[in-house]
Amino acid sequence: MGKIVRVDMSEGKARLEETPKSYANLAGRGLTSMIVGSEVPARCHALGRRNKLVIAPGALTGTGAPNSGRLSIGCKSPLTEGIKESNVGGTPGHQLGRLGIDAVVLESLPQGDGLHLLHLSKRGAELIPCGEYKGLKNYELVKKLQDRFGSKTSILSIGPVGEMKLSTATVAATDTSGFPCRHAARGGPGAVMGSKGLKAVVIDDEGTARVSAADPEKFKTGARRCTRAFKGNAFTQRLKDYGTSILVKGINSAGAFPTRNFREGYFKEVDRISGEHMKELLAARGGKQSHAGCSTCIIRCSNVYVDEQGSYITSSLEYETIWAHGANLGVADLDSIAWADRLCDDYGMDTMEIGAAIGVAMDAGLKPFGDSQGALELLKEVGEGTPLGRILGSGSWITGKVFGATRVPTVKRQAMAAYDPRGLHGMGVTYATSPMGADHTAGVMVHQNLDGELDPHKPDGQVDTCRQVQIRLAAVDCTGLCLFANRPIFLNPEGLQGMLEMMGARYGVVYTLDDFFALGRKVLRTEREFNLAAGMTRADDRLPEFFKEEKIPPHNVAFTVEDEDLDRLFEF
Amino acid sequence: MGKIVRVDMSEGKARLEETPKSYANLAGRGLTSMIVGSEVPARCHALGRRNKLVIAPGALTGTGAPNSGRLSIGCKSPLTEGIKESNVGGTPGHQLGRLGIDAVVLESLPQGDGLHLLHLSKRGAELIPCGEYKGLKNYELVKKLQDRFGSKTSILSIGPVGEMKLSTATVAATDTSGFPCRHAARGGPGAVMGSKGLKAVVIDDEGTARVSAADPEKFKTGARRCTRAFKGNAFTQRLKDYGTSILVKGINSAGAFPTRNFREGYFKEVDRISGEHMKELLAARGGKQSHAGCSTCIIRCSNVYVDEQGSYITSSLEYETIWAHGANLGVADLDSIAWADRLCDDYGMDTMEIGAAIGVAMDAGLKPFGDSQGALELLKEVGEGTPLGRILGSGSWITGKVFGATRVPTVKRQAMAAYDPRGLHGMGVTYATSPMGADHTAGVMVHQNLDGELDPHKPDGQVDTCRQVQIRLAAVDCTGLCLFANRPIFLNPEGLQGMLEMMGARYGVVYTLDDFFALGRKVLRTEREFNLAAGMTRADDRLPEFFKEEKIPPHNVAFTVEDEDLDRLFEF
Repeated sequence: MGKIVRVDMSEGKARLEETPKSYANLAGRGLTSMIVGSEVPARCHALGRRNKLVIAPGALTGTGAPNSGRLSIGCKSPLTEGIKESNVGGTPGHQLGRLGIDAVVLESLPQGDGLHLLHLSKRGAELIPCGEYKGLKNYELVKKLQDRFGSKTSILSIGPVGEMKLSTATVAATDTSGFPCRHAARGGPGAVMGSKGLKAVVIDDEGTARVSAADPEKFKTGARRCTRAFKGNAFTQRLKDYGTSILVKGINSAGAFPTRNFREGYFKEVDRISGEHMKELLAARGGKQSHAGCSTCIIRCSNVYVDEQGSYITSSLEYETIWAHGANLGVADLDSIAWADRLCDDYGMDTMEIGAAIGVAMDAGLKPFGDSQGALELLKEVGEGTPLGRILGSGSWITGKVFGATRVPTVKRQAMAAYDPRGLHGMGVTYATSPMGADHTAGVMVHQNLDGELDPHKPDGQVDTCRQVQIRLAAVDCTGLCLFANRPIFLNPEGLQGMLEMMGARYGVVYTLDDFFALGRKVLRTEREFNLAAGMTRADDRLPEFFKEEKIPPHNVAFTVEDEDLDRLFEF
Repeated sequence: MGKIVRVDMSEGKARLEETPKSYANLAGRGLTSMIVGSEVPARCHALGRRNKLVIAPGALTGTGAPNSGRLSIGCKSPLTEGIKESNVGGTPGHQLGRLGIDAVVLESLPQGDGLHLLHLSKRGAELIPCGEYKGLKNYELVKKLQDRFGSKTSILSIGPVGEMKLSTATVAATDTSGFPCRHAARGGPGAVMGSKGLKAVVIDDEGTARVSAADPEKFKTGARRCTRAFKGNAFTQRLKDYGTSILVKGINSAGAFPTRNFREGYFKEVDRISGEHMKELLAARGGKQSHAGCSTCIIRCSNVYVDEQGSYITSSLEYETIWAHGANLGVADLDSIAWADRLCDDYGMDTMEIGAAIGVAMDAGLKPFGDSQGALELLKEVGEGTPLGRILGSGSWITGKVFGATRVPTVKRQAMAAYDPRGLHGMGVTYATSPMGADHTAGVMVHQNLDGELDPHKPDGQVDTCRQVQIRLAAVDCTGLCLFANRPIFLNPEGLQGMLEMMGARYGVVYTLDDFFALGRKVLRTEREFNLAAGMTRADDRLPEFFKEEKIPPHNVAFTVEDEDLDRLFEF
C-alpha cells in the first residue's frame, strides 16, 4: 500500500497518509478521477478552496516497465468546468512512483498570496515558502531549483501563466535532460496549482529503488513481452525515426489538418513543417531525433530542436504544436513554431489551447494568418499578462467571446486538437463526447479512420468504435503506460498479454482483459457523472454548429454524425 | 391582426407579413419568447445566422393606456446562451404599436460587413445601407438620424459596443426628449443586432393614430381605473418625487446594497449617492425630477441629470446604475456616476453588467475600489475596443475568468443587480431561477422582503412567493405596462380590474385573471424549455458558492435557500 500526500495550503502543511482502501489499486487517471469525483463538489469554483489538484503516477509508473513514466494530474478544470485528467511524461511520475507516493493532493487555498514549493523525498514531504520565485518562467525556475535541490531531482512547476490562474496554464514536468518541456497541459491544471499558491513540486528519489512488483518474475516476463511488442510495431518505429511530427503529412493528405482556424483541411505549405523536413533540418543542425524524453521510454519519439547555430530551442517539438502554431495560423516556418513551443514551455501554457485561441483571434482580424512574428508577439503578451495576453491565455472559447467570433473550434469550452472532425469523423466523436472536452488523447481515432476500418467521412461505426477506444484509453491512462503503447498492446496479442501480466504481477492478482475494460468503464463513468453533476448535459456533447454547416476543403465534407448517435456513446 | 416585419439580412430585404395565427394575441415578452422558442435552435451560436432578434411592443403599447410604452427585445443571449427578453421604455414601442407592427424579426447574417438601418413608417419597411454611421456613438448617431428622418422619429440603435458584438451591448431607445438614454440592456441584445449588421431602426409614426381597442369604451374605463390606481399608490408617488434612486437608502439600510463587489451590504457614504441627495442637487443645478421619459407615462420616475453648469449629462440616472457605478465600486460621487451612465448610453452598454465587471476587476486588483476616474477610464476603454475594454465589455463572468477571480456575482453568466441575495433572500431566488439569469426585473422581491411579508434573511416562503411574482411579471411584460404598474395593479383591486378590462377590450375578448396568469406561466415555461434545450440544468439555477460561504456585513448573513427548495420554483 502506498501513501497519499495531503497538502493543506490554508495551513501550509503537508501530511502523509496511507492510501485508504477506497482508493486501493487505483492509479493514474483512475485515482485522480476517483479522488476528484468523490472529494470535489462538482459545482465548486475551479479556482476556489473546494477544488483539489491531484497528482498521481500510473500503476506501473516507478517500475521498470517500458514506457511507463506517465503521470496524471486531475482537478475540476477552470477551462471546461468539468472534470479533467491531464497526462504528462518526463521524469516526475517515475520518481513519485519510486517514493511510494500514490498521489499528491493539494487542498484549500493559501491565506495570503505567498508562494510555496513542495519538496518530496524519502525523508517525507515539506512545504517551503518560495516568494523569491514569483513570476519566474519555467526554464529559469527549474535551473534554480536544480541548483538548490540537486540536478537529478524531478520538478513539476508552473510559469507566469499558472500564477495568473489563466485557463491555458500547464503544470510543467522536467524531461530526462532536466528541462521543463513536458506539460500536463490541457484544461488548465496549472491555473488550479496557481490558485493553491504552489509554484513547484520538487521530487528527489535519491536512495529509493524501482517499485518492485508483488510477483517480480511474472512482471519481468510481462515487461519483456511488451518491449518486444513495442519494438516490433511499425508505427512506433516511425515515431522513433520522425517523432509525432510524422503525422503532419499524413493527416494533411487526408484533408484533416485544420488550417487557418479550421477553414481548410489541407495546408499547401506542408512540406516546410513536415516531420520529414524537421528530420533533415535537425540532422543538418546537430539537433536530436529518437530522443527518449520520459523515464523508461523505449519508443523514443522525442526530439531536441536546435537553431541554425545548433543551440537548444525546445524539446520535443510535437505534431500538435506544429499544427497549432503552424497550419492553424497559416505559418510555414518551423523555427518560429519551435520558438512558440519554447515560449509556451517557459510561460507554462497549453500549446494547443493557445494556438487555437490565436487562430480564432486571427480569424476575427486581430492579425493576418501567416504572421509568424505577430503570433510570437501574442504569446509574449500572455506571458507578460497584458490584457490581450490574458484574453488569449484564457483559451479559445473566451477569445471567441471577446472578439465576437463564430468560428470557435471548442467542445465543453476546450479547443480541439490537430484533427478536423469533418475529415476524421471518429475524432469528432471523441471531441464531442469525451468528458475531457475536445481532447484527442481521450479517444485517438486516427488509425481506425485512415487504415480502412472506418470511412473517415461517414458516421457508420464511429460511435461504437469510439466507445471502445475511450474505454481502452481511460484504462491505459491508469497504467502509466504512454499513449503509444496502446497500439502495440491492442494490435499484438503478445503486447496485450504482457500488459495484463504486468498489471497482475504489480498488485499480486490475476488481471484479465475484463478487469482492464471494467476499469476503463469505471473511470469514464465517474468522469461523466462529475460533469453531469457540474451541470453538463447532452447539449455539451456536441460540436459547434459550423462543423455541420461549413464543408471543409479539399474533400468538401461536413461532420455528419447525428446527435442521437453521439448520445449512444455512454451506453455501456 | 397586426404585421410582422421580417428582415433577412443576408438578402438585405425587409418584408411584411400578417402575424400568423400561432402568434395571435401574443405581444411583448410573450411574442419575443414564443418566436425565439419556436424559430431559433437552442444550441445555435448567439452571433450566428440562426439566431434572431425579435422586437415586439406589448399588447397595450401604442394605445393610450397609462405607462404602456414598453418594448420587448428578445433573442438567444450571447451572455447567458439562454433565451433573453430585455425590456425597454422610451418612445419606440409606442410608435411601433401605432404602426400596427406586432414584431420586427431580424434574421440571418449580412454577406459583408456593411451596416444597414431599418426604416419603418406607414409606407412600409425599408433597409438602407448606412456605412457612414460605422463606429458612431448613440448620441451622435441619433442626432444625425433625427436630422435626416425627422426629430419626431423614434430610434432604436447600437453604439460601438454593439458593433463589436460584446455581450454587454444594449439596444438604445430614444426617450420622450429624443435622447438615446433608455436601453434594452440585459443579456447583450445589442451584440445580436450588431451581428446582424443593423445599426438602427428608425420608426416614423407620422400619419398614424393610437391603436384602437376592439371595445373602445371598455378600454377607456379600464384605463381610467388604472390611472387612478397608479396615481393612488404610495410607492409610485415616491418614484415621482425621487425616481428609482429612492431605493438607495432603503436597500442600504436593509444591508442588501452590494458594496465593493458584494463584499459588504452597506455603503457608509450612502448619503452622497442617495435619491434624496440627487433631488437636492438637481433642484439646485436646474436639472429635472418627475420627468416622463416614456410614452404614456404618468408615474414620471425619470430625471434629467445636469452638471454644475446646468448642462445635460444623462437621463435618467437610475437606482441600478447608481449602485453599479457607485457603491459596487466604492464610488461616492454622483457626478462621476452620471458620467458613467452617459458613457454607457453613448457606447451602448448595460450599466449593470459593465459595473459588475469593473467591480470584479477592481476586486482582482486592476484598480482600487473608490477610483472613480479609473472606472471612467475603463468605460472608455470598452468604447474604444481596447483589449482590456473588450474583456470588461464581455461581462463580469468573462472578466472573472480572465482575471482569475472567484468572487463573481453572476448566475447563468449574467451579473446580479443592486440587491444582495444574502440581505434579500427573495431576490436571490429570482437570480437563481429566472430563465433570464440574475435579472431583478424578472421577479422583483423587494417589497415582499422588506414590508414584513417575508423575512429577508430566511428561506421560508421565498420560493413560493417568487414563483407567483415571476409568473405575474412575465405576464406584465406581455402587456407593455411598465414594471411599476405591477404594484398598483396587484395591491389595488381597481388597478387589477382596469388592467384586465384593457386587455380584454384590446382584443375584444373576456379577459380574466386566470388568463393573465396562464399567459405568465406559458411564457415562463417556453423560456425554461429553451434553456433546457440549450443545455442548462438545475445546476445553472444556483448562486455562486461564495454567497453561501461568505456572510455579508452588516447583518452577517449568508444565502440559505436550499437547492431542493430552488428546484421547486418551476413546479407549476
